[in-house]
Amino acid sequence: MGIGGRLKSWIGDQRVEQLRDRLAELAEQSTEHHLRLAVTGLSQSGKTVFISALVHHLLHAHRSGSLPFFDVATSGRIIGSRDLSDESGTPFPLQQAIAGLGREPPHWPASTRELSEVRLAIRYRRPPGLRRVLGESATLYLDIIDYPGEWLLDLPMLELSFEQWCASQQRLFEQEPRLSVASDWLTRLRQVDWHAPAEPALLQELSGTYTRLLHRLRSDPYALSLLQPGRCVLPGELEGTELLQLFPLVLPSWPMGAIPDGSFLALLKSRYEQYRQQVVRPFYLRHFSRFDRQVVLVDCLKTLNRGEACFEDMQRALNGILQSFNYGRNGFLRRLFKPRIDRVLFASTKADHVTANQHHNLDRFLELMIQDAQRDMGFEGIATRCMAIASVRSTQAAEAQVDGQTLSCLRGWRKDSDEEIALFPGEVPTELPRAEDWTQERFRFIDFAPRRLPQNELQPSHHIRLDQLLEYMTGDQFR
Amino acid sequence: MGIGGRLKSWIGDQRVEQLRDRLAELAEQSTEHHLRLAVTGLSQSGKTVFISALVHHLLHAHRSGSLPFFDVATSGRIIGSRDLSDESGTPFPLQQAIAGLGREPPHWPASTRELSEVRLAIRYRRPPGLRRVLGESATLYLDIIDYPGEWLLDLPMLELSFEQWCASQQRLFEQEPRLSVASDWLTRLRQVDWHAPAEPALLQELSGTYTRLLHRLRSDPYALSLLQPGRCVLPGELEGTELLQLFPLVLPSWPMGAIPDGSFLALLKSRYEQYRQQVVRPFYLRHFSRFDRQVVLVDCLKTLNRGEACFEDMQRALNGILQSFNYGRNGFLRRLFKPRIDRVLFASTKADHVTANQHHNLDRFLELMIQDAQRDMGFEGIATRCMAIASVRSTQAAEAQVDGQTLSCLRGWRKDSDEEIALFPGEVPTELPRAEDWTQERFRFIDFAPRRLPQNELQPSHHIRLDQLLEYMTGDQFR
Repeated sequence: MGIGGRLKSWIGDQRVEQLRDRLAELAEQSTEHHLRLAVTGLSQSGKTVFISALVHHLLHAHRSGSLPFFDVATSGRIIGSRDLSDESGTPFPLQQAIAGLGREPPHWPASTRELSEVRLAIRYRRPPGLRRVLGESATLYLDIIDYPGEWLLDLPMLELSFEQWCASQQRLFEQEPRLSVASDWLTRLRQVDWHAPAEPALLQELSGTYTRLLHRLRSDPYALSLLQPGRCVLPGELEGTELLQLFPLVLPSWPMGAIPDGSFLALLKSRYEQYRQQVVRPFYLRHFSRFDRQVVLVDCLKTLNRGEACFEDMQRALNGILQSFNYGRNGFLRRLFKPRIDRVLFASTKADHVTANQHHNLDRFLELMIQDAQRDMGFEGIATRCMAIASVRSTQAAEAQVDGQTLSCLRGWRKDSDEEIALFPGEVPTELPRAEDWTQERFRFIDFAPRRLPQNELQPSHHIRLDQLLEYMTGDQFR
Repeated sequence: MGIGGRLKSWIGDQRVEQLRDRLAELAEQSTEHHLRLAVTGLSQSGKTVFISALVHHLLHAHRSGSLPFFDVATSGRIIGSRDLSDESGTPFPLQQAIAGLGREPPHWPASTRELSEVRLAIRYRRPPGLRRVLGESATLYLDIIDYPGEWLLDLPMLELSFEQWCASQQRLFEQEPRLSVASDWLTRLRQVDWHAPAEPALLQELSGTYTRLLHRLRSDPYALSLLQPGRCVLPGELEGTELLQLFPLVLPSWPMGAIPDGSFLALLKSRYEQYRQQVVRPFYLRHFSRFDRQVVLVDCLKTLNRGEACFEDMQRALNGILQSFNYGRNGFLRRLFKPRIDRVLFASTKADHVTANQHHNLDRFLELMIQDAQRDMGFEGIATRCMAIASVRSTQAAEAQVDGQTLSCLRGWRKDSDEEIALFPGEVPTELPRAEDWTQERFRFIDFAPRRLPQNELQPSHHIRLDQLLEYMTGDQFR
């Protein structure tokens, strides 16, 4: 007698039929489910390449074996995957990006300038134990959403008045390199009578200058990250609109007295209010509130190479970004919506630029950079992990003998000269650098030229830990 | 009006007096408390040096500043410490060991052969917030108990019949190097008629041969760890008693038929039963059941140097030892007593024999060795951590330039020649070695000569992470 027969003999025919119908209904409901996985990071952290390579491996996972630690792939349970990105209103340029990575030399895709998404349908067989009850197979609709981390930097504006925001910016512009780079603009601000009737043309001119200033601070040699408003740097679909004609009043002292209607000051204040209400809030309401999980990419090595000011600014920016996950402290986020992100992964990119022997140090170094934010997230019930990864692996392991011991080295192509080299690429520091560590040009990680990612025949050696990342971010969904 | 006055106005004089008396009583009760911290490890893992150095730093913690990450010391709350080890029935030879470490050249204390303990009384000021309620100061009586890890190897015997135990030993003796080293003894066993009337003299001779065999397997070049019965290796106070005249019957086939009364087989079986009841059980009842926390020391580097057989045997032994903390699976431990160990720290010793850059790899390597046991302990509610430490630091950091990058090196004195050297000491593997890793003599960690530990003026540079270990194991007790 099968389980159905036994059940009937216990609780009667009719109840068993009802139960069976209910199970079938449940099974139907659960054969399709959705996961929205967001990917962000500060500029040049490699988001676009990451998404392209990740999806490329995923689309081949049913036959390539390139993701050994991604259980649903390794156990042969992926039936097939389809790219449905065209259904999205803001599709990620997937085919183009993957094709670019496969050229010789590879063509690195254009960087993230606005929100876009990949939509995948992944059909998989359930694990053996669940097949009987829930049916043989199911489909995970996986949305991977790419957006600039700079947009998250605007979150604190939701809590700050215009005066408070200007004061916070003033503290930044008191320090180098901002102080020197911005000196002309700071002088210009002092020459304006902020109580005089507003001239929109002048405001446009000043905001244009400010935007150029932000771009200069963002570029080499400064490469700063903590730049607000985030949309002035990466405007997305707001490019050229009045909403972005906005800047902080960084003055030695705040213009005293009442703010006359129609004055420069009143106009600037209303622009700030508009930006908060029409740009920052909608991003959280329309997009952020719908993310289930988040990957944050960080290029620790490049930031170390660039020196103290760049590193510290990046660390501040990163911790600013992570405020968006600190729902408790930022009560207004919880008032805006019911947060649902339950898992955040911090990925140190370009792990292929150091030896495997340094990967734990790279994991740990990122942990040190964000330890306070990570603790806060733990308190909010968000699981977090730091992981060193490489989206496309440009180097191979090599060895050298030093003092009779084996030293792990790398073989690859120098980015600047494209000559093949095999060398010791340096150590990842085990502690956050102290002031004296910066004086001696301690960090000189080599930039290796990217390798092409084949269109087929993907191997585990084409990436570092993309499979572990997928397992952590999506593994529990393939039930 | 103080808090007492305000309370009186709310709830009346008499109740406040009662409350005050009760608080004073509570405070008195809590001015003294005990913690029993057990330390074990397989032979030559450095238990005795570890305890000597740890206690030496602790006794100087109120004035030396050598433990920066040990909060109660750094915040200046330790008033003073006293060594009360003489009160113990089995005192650890503390003064002698510390004096030995201070000689030039240092005299390494004799290794652990039986259970012994250090008793310390540490008087400390409470943290500011608790002083008002609980009184200004309190005393922690810290017992540090040293015992051979080999004794824990006997735990599985509590669950195995003599036949089952012999079968488990047979599987071990089928493999090299045991098979070759034990060949004479194995032949001898086959020549005895186990059903014949027992001759105690022959049994004594055979058990003597077996004990010598265990010692041979335990020594270089084999250096095996998984040796049972543990007391035959380290007899402690049982040295020379009949209880240890015992060995497993490792025969091609088990002697068939009923076991005649008074036969060799019957005698051996009863010895096994005696050993379980009079040696193994009492250790758990009298000692193990009273431990609050446990440190397990492991010398990963030495074991890697010794090659595959030694490494794998040590890994098996270590996981065997950790069964003692797996109360759930070993229900008989829970039937014996109410286990109270709530925290276990696994310390990789001799972290000073690799560079600081390799310490995370050393932490992680030990985690890989014990990952199953660690997961089981988590399930039992026992907090665990792996930490690379050095009890007495023999090396200093040095640097070399390789390919234009800085490579961390060590400076120290070679143990074999006592010449001063500065060199790259090798990398800790990031994964458990595979078969092919053993063929090329991959692991050749240098043995550095120990440095003397001064009697006074202790510095943080005299150890690695003893302070973090103390904080993890005892920090919460200084309230």
